Amino acid sequence: MANLATKPYVIGIDMGGTNTAFGIVDARGNVIASDSIKTGKHSDINDYIDELYTEITRIIVANDAVDKINGIGIGAPNANYYTGIIEDGVNLPWPTPIPLAELITEKFGIPCVITNDANAAAIGEMTYGVARGMKDFIMITLGTGVGSGIVINGQMVYGHDGFAGELGHVVMKRNNGRMCGCGRTGCLEAYCSATGVARTAREFLDIRTDESKLRELDADKITSKDVYDCAVAGDKLAKEIFEYTGTILGEALADFTTFSSPEAFVLFGGLTKSGDLIMKPVRDAFEKNVMKVFKGKVKILISELKESDAAVLGASALGWEVKE
Amino acid sequence: MANLATKPYVIGIDMGGTNTAFGIVDARGNVIASDSIKTGKHSDINDYIDELYTEITRIIVANDAVDKINGIGIGAPNANYYTGIIEDGVNLPWPTPIPLAELITEKFGIPCVITNDANAAAIGEMTYGVARGMKDFIMITLGTGVGSGIVINGQMVYGHDGFAGELGHVVMKRNNGRMCGCGRTGCLEAYCSATGVARTAREFLDIRTDESKLRELDADKITSKDVYDCAVAGDKLAKEIFEYTGTILGEALADFTTFSSPEAFVLFGGLTKSGDLIMKPVRDAFEKNVMKVFKGKVKILISELKESDAAVLGASALGWEVKE
Repeated sequence: MANLATKPYVIGIDMGGTNTAFGIVDARGNVIASDSIKTGKHSDINDYIDELYTEITRIIVANDAVDKINGIGIGAPNANYYTGIIEDGVNLPWPTPIPLAELITEKFGIPCVITNDANAAAIGEMTYGVARGMKDFIMITLGTGVGSGIVINGQMVYGHDGFAGELGHVVMKRNNGRMCGCGRTGCLEAYCSATGVARTAREFLDIRTDESKLRELDADKITSKDVYDCAVAGDKLAKEIFEYTGTILGEALADFTTFSSPEAFVLFGGLTKSGDLIMKPVRDAFEKNVMKVFKGKVKILISELKESDAAVLGASALGWEVKE
Repeated sequence: MANLATKPYVIGIDMGGTNTAFGIVDARGNVIASDSIKTGKHSDINDYIDELYTEITRIIVANDAVDKINGIGIGAPNANYYTGIIEDGVNLPWPTPIPLAELITEKFGIPCVITNDANAAAIGEMTYGVARGMKDFIMITLGTGVGSGIVINGQMVYGHDGFAGELGHVVMKRNNGRMCGCGRTGCLEAYCSATGVARTAREFLDIRTDESKLRELDADKITSKDVYDCAVAGDKLAKEIFEYTGTILGEALADFTTFSSPEAFVLFGGLTKSGDLIMKPVRDAFEKNVMKVFKGKVKILISELKESDAAVLGASALGWEVKE
């Protein structure tokens, strides 16, 4: 992509519910400079964009990059690639829809492309990460929620309306499924996100009687990190929570494979730091449940991008796609 | 596609477990001539190909189409577009793998492209049917099994190995699911194929006590057509069988939408002849289960291609893609 660009740098912006990280990136994926601001500091979106402009201009000037920015790419929740609009930003402090691409383009005088955060991660992985050279892969982001970015024939899948790739909301439990943030029940996200792991912990502690270090914690405040720490310390119940989580994720990936037969799944986000605790049950459940024709063929990889850079890198890769 | 072709006709071959239908098709999708042979008549694949050659040559000569055939397209079970091989043809009388594209190309002296039957149907729908002009749609074939062909960004999705689009084998019942022909349990195909409808009839008759005209039939021989006839005649249990079937299919389509956000699903095959008996529960369950962002956006259509021509037409469309 970079070879079609007319200028040497792009700006990547990762707009999260809490922080907005941004950076200047070169064509090789080096983050030349980066910083962040608090997303929720301003109650008016225009004030937020003013601060973003001030801070980004500061690092542009400091790095001698004035007039050298090819484009701005933004990964943001529910951001629509086609329309440039954030259509229903549940975790953002401003009313939606937000015509983000237009607001940024006007303020910066630099063309801007936006997409949702999981798609940005997939683009980053394809451009700079373990999916380099792959034409068919699926990115699964395991964070507060479960997101996905799907690449087929070397192209991002946006769907007819720009909202494709919501694999966190495939139904994994049709009966008595957990309530999901999307208003439906039984979604993958309700089980395999970091919050899903914490919910599983509370459920297991509630319905089971075996001892566990997790019982020493305030159940309402248990996090997936607590479950990880206990599992690493040998706690049997905590290990079973990861097995339960990984098994559901592996079953889901087996189903996803029937769709696009990807060369690989690339997992990204906090939960992947649990290593084999989560990856072994994922891989076992995948091979057990996938159709025979796909057995042994599909890689399940963990992203190797530094998490602090990955979101900015992914968003920045969109900056090479802009049309002047 | 047709405008890149150097010759005015293509041959389409639909290779089924029982019959092999074939025809000469022009660039507008007119079937100039067609006929069929019995797939299972020959125990040696070479004898089968000899008969196919004799019969197709006969209609080519009779229609003054010698040296006017651009290519041969074949839709066949488990046929791999990339390799030209039928890799595990469960319903065919010959040992697999079968290097079908190579055998046909050599025998006919005309380049041949193969794909699985559901992909062929999708290509036919995109080239000649209700999906003309659509860049994102999913074809679902409801026959003895449930097949699918997925089109994204105007391209067939073959996946990294050529086996993408096996949506009939997405798991819809994770606990106590029905045995499926693929060796796994709970697959969509085990519920929403014609045979799935017959199985549902037997289950309902077994576990329920309410009266039904279906009880007058030999339970082991009930077909989906019997269920249809009874439903049309007002039989309540038969109607409920369609509701049950359509509901599962609608739930499945809702999940598939999270993947590629298609403009439409195009349903094809015997079961769609049941009209609103099946389509109403499909559409109701779809709208009830789909994520809010997709509600009211996705069309669920029935193929308008004549079923007798559709498979041949779909396969033939591949004949425009061949490279000399």
